Amino acid sequence: MRRDRLFLAATLTAIFSADLYFILLPKLRSVGLGSGHLCPCGVANNLTLPSHGGLATPRLSNWTSAPPPDGTASEAADGGSKLRRLFAHPLYNIQTPMLAPEERLLEVELLMEYYRKKMSRWQRHMKVYSEAVALSNITLTKHDVTYDPHASWLEFHRGINRYALYAREDPAIPQLLKDMQSMTVVGSDYTQDQKALKGSCDCTQVVKPSGHHLKLALKMQNFAKAMFKPMRQQRDQETPEDVFYFVDFQRHNAEIAAFHLDRILDFRRVPPVAGRLVNLTGEVLHVTHNEDLRGVFFTSPANNACFFAKCLYVCKTEYAVCGGPHLLEGSLSAYLPGLSIAPRISIPNPWKRSYTFTGREEWELNPFYCDTVKQLYPYNAGNRLLNVIDMSIFDFLTSNMDRHHYEIFTKFGDEGFLLHLDNAKGFGKHSQDELSILAPLAQCCMIKSSTLMRLQLLVRAELRLSDVMRESLEGDPLRPILTEPHLLALDRRLQKVLRTVQGCVRRLGKGHVITKDFVKSRPQTEKVS
Amino acid sequence: MRRDRLFLAATLTAIFSADLYFILLPKLRSVGLGSGHLCPCGVANNLTLPSHGGLATPRLSNWTSAPPPDGTASEAADGGSKLRRLFAHPLYNIQTPMLAPEERLLEVELLMEYYRKKMSRWQRHMKVYSEAVALSNITLTKHDVTYDPHASWLEFHRGINRYALYAREDPAIPQLLKDMQSMTVVGSDYTQDQKALKGSCDCTQVVKPSGHHLKLALKMQNFAKAMFKPMRQQRDQETPEDVFYFVDFQRHNAEIAAFHLDRILDFRRVPPVAGRLVNLTGEVLHVTHNEDLRGVFFTSPANNACFFAKCLYVCKTEYAVCGGPHLLEGSLSAYLPGLSIAPRISIPNPWKRSYTFTGREEWELNPFYCDTVKQLYPYNAGNRLLNVIDMSIFDFLTSNMDRHHYEIFTKFGDEGFLLHLDNAKGFGKHSQDELSILAPLAQCCMIKSSTLMRLQLLVRAELRLSDVMRESLEGDPLRPILTEPHLLALDRRLQKVLRTVQGCVRRLGKGHVITKDFVKSRPQTEKVS
Repeated sequence: MRRDRLFLAATLTAIFSADLYFILLPKLRSVGLGSGHLCPCGVANNLTLPSHGGLATPRLSNWTSAPPPDGTASEAADGGSKLRRLFAHPLYNIQTPMLAPEERLLEVELLMEYYRKKMSRWQRHMKVYSEAVALSNITLTKHDVTYDPHASWLEFHRGINRYALYAREDPAIPQLLKDMQSMTVVGSDYTQDQKALKGSCDCTQVVKPSGHHLKLALKMQNFAKAMFKPMRQQRDQETPEDVFYFVDFQRHNAEIAAFHLDRILDFRRVPPVAGRLVNLTGEVLHVTHNEDLRGVFFTSPANNACFFAKCLYVCKTEYAVCGGPHLLEGSLSAYLPGLSIAPRISIPNPWKRSYTFTGREEWELNPFYCDTVKQLYPYNAGNRLLNVIDMSIFDFLTSNMDRHHYEIFTKFGDEGFLLHLDNAKGFGKHSQDELSILAPLAQCCMIKSSTLMRLQLLVRAELRLSDVMRESLEGDPLRPILTEPHLLALDRRLQKVLRTVQGCVRRLGKGHVITKDFVKSRPQTEKVS
Repeated sequence: MRRDRLFLAATLTAIFSADLYFILLPKLRSVGLGSGHLCPCGVANNLTLPSHGGLATPRLSNWTSAPPPDGTASEAADGGSKLRRLFAHPLYNIQTPMLAPEERLLEVELLMEYYRKKMSRWQRHMKVYSEAVALSNITLTKHDVTYDPHASWLEFHRGINRYALYAREDPAIPQLLKDMQSMTVVGSDYTQDQKALKGSCDCTQVVKPSGHHLKLALKMQNFAKAMFKPMRQQRDQETPEDVFYFVDFQRHNAEIAAFHLDRILDFRRVPPVAGRLVNLTGEVLHVTHNEDLRGVFFTSPANNACFFAKCLYVCKTEYAVCGGPHLLEGSLSAYLPGLSIAPRISIPNPWKRSYTFTGREEWELNPFYCDTVKQLYPYNAGNRLLNVIDMSIFDFLTSNMDRHHYEIFTKFGDEGFLLHLDNAKGFGKHSQDELSILAPLAQCCMIKSSTLMRLQLLVRAELRLSDVMRESLEGDPLRPILTEPHLLALDRRLQKVLRTVQGCVRRLGKGHVITKDFVKSRPQTEKVS
């Protein structure tokens, strides 16, 4: 209890100081100087950004002094890494309080026990299977697995806590990205959700796509597990205008870019994603024990290794993807801890779309829809609605219209953060901004103060979102991950988010719109419905 | 009997004269002049083309005198229509003998009776249906149908005979093309073969495509019926190299181009095909009485009218095609007379391909496959094998690998010509020549003399295949039908056909390879198996 109170006090102080430095001081200054300079795009007039500095925290060594707010002139002179400068900003250095054991997702002993069990089961299975295969003419490459109690994926799982999936400075994350990019793949299989379908395509709705049957689970030498989504589309191809969002392709580069964006927005709600050139033959076909999966591999007329999505009643070679002749780009998303040790629930997004041709959901018709939502549990208390709004901003920036559900860890109860899983439908069209994705923000007219401050930081020329994204994505082996038009769209969309907030503030006043992040005591006594 | 003998004599004379003028004379001349000029591409050394003129028939007014055989220099000076010049050539003016009534496909009285019956059934149905629809909120546009005993489609049906689908100079054909391009559409429906499937996708084989569910039957005001295949692909898109021929798109422009090519090759075995901008709403959705068909129409996110292919278990919006907002290009192929008055049988192509990923058919492995075929009925007698070889040349030129069956009219027995239906899988890749399509020619080393002579004509610069095709396709409202690379591929492929023949002649001698077209007595006493 004491720690909580301390944390509450620290957060409030931080927010107050930030308010003082970011909002009040510049305002006073601009009153003093007259309306010195207009924001280049008409945004942030009453949401002015600080002209320099922030909280009096350490780690300011990279922070150059007082760039002008519109900054374009000084940009060239800046030099150095904008990304490093962003992460060095005080807003990105608010300390998370020390974590009590129950604020972590997993007990370390439990996790290690789970890992050891999985490992020995795998080794037993491998032995039996290899003997069986030896009698057939199936090619199976046997790799030894290594037990490593300090493996990066274990560190990642260990680090998950009630505030985020990982800590900002956690060295396990870059290591995990590196491991997924290069570590030997020892096994491949369908993902659990696909196995549950048993090859039947979900046809409950007239318009369900079936291309999702192409994603696979890959197991690395140190037992890290990653979801592989193969490349379906060239970087410069845009989704045709007649395609409904629900039949759009999954894009491996969108999955990668979404992880980087989420980290830059400091949400840390997307599990690490790395790009990799996967050898479809050596790293998928020859290491699978699943006969169904082996059955969808074929050699194309151009002698490339390919595999296709198979549904129970239809065999869709049209969905085939092919290597060249074996290598194919794909995204590898780190798996979260298994549901048996870290249960999650999947909750329908209140602003989910109709998955039919003509259907309209209530939020599309009723401008006061948010008032209804606000009265409903769990959106009537705590941060949940603000979290949904965070998510809508994230999805608007990537232009992902397919957020029908979100997941939370049951352990953290209703105050847990929302997981931003499955981002591959984003970045389909750079030329279009789908404002309807922002409906939660526009209709509720609420935003976390901490989120808003970071967004305001990212419109500044010296920290421009597209620039830090470009820099961040440069670290991926499949670079360039996003084409320039997609990167520039991020800036344009960010402006639109801020304009929406500005409109709300103008109508309702800052006090109603910009919400101090709500920090609640530990969810020991809470239950998720 | 007398007429037959006369016809036989006329044909033999024609072929002999052509032989004399095309083969012997130039040879003598080239011996006289030394090897004056080489064919630009090394072909046709011992299959030399005539330096001018042909049979001493009329209609030579357009025929310019003595262009040099390689002709490139004089091309510009030529002026005028190469297509007209081609059709004026003596080879294209060999007279078909007068037709006896039994040599025509249809008895006129029967045809008219059939037409009248269909018409009155339609009118009765329309009346009942319109009344039913009036009570619902379905939009149905009612058009009156007109009875026209001289309608072009009737003339086309009347003209079908044992030699070809239409006569070279038949004025009904251009009129039918014009009618299909512009006549009011009064009804739309699925085609019979799709109705037979009842929405189930043919999944007997692992790799069957399902996109064919997009073709529709349109009925015109004068009761002409045409098969509509909508545009799926831009003209400049090539089939990706990893796509198997059996899952390739159907291309409306390939369907159109194939009709023109068939006419230029003087086969006349493809029913007339015209391009048309079809209004998906007004000319399909609002004139159908089929509820299933109405059910696959939807409005896209970009507000375009679209429809998709629906299979029983899978709903493939991925296969949707959309207008802009209503108009969509498509090919309209004239229907042949109904099976009840003009039965046809569908016969597996001896050189059909395996419709699996890895399967190989015998012809792909056994270089002496043709020897087996030659001993089998009906390929052991008459023109049937030569007709299959004609078809393979036609398919090689269009690069259509999907000729699993061919059809013939049962009335004309085994000597009937082969129908070249369903050519939409052609023209997928201009940059590739699929030599395996020529297997019947290459393995049997036989070709009709008349076919060869026309092919030799079409490599001549002053009648170059690509030029006459370009000119012929200019007549279609959806011009350009083929991109330049596709047109030029025709010339390249034609050279390869001639080179194949040349190789055969070198090995086996002209007498074994170039076969005088076999003319048999009327098939009164024959039966098709």
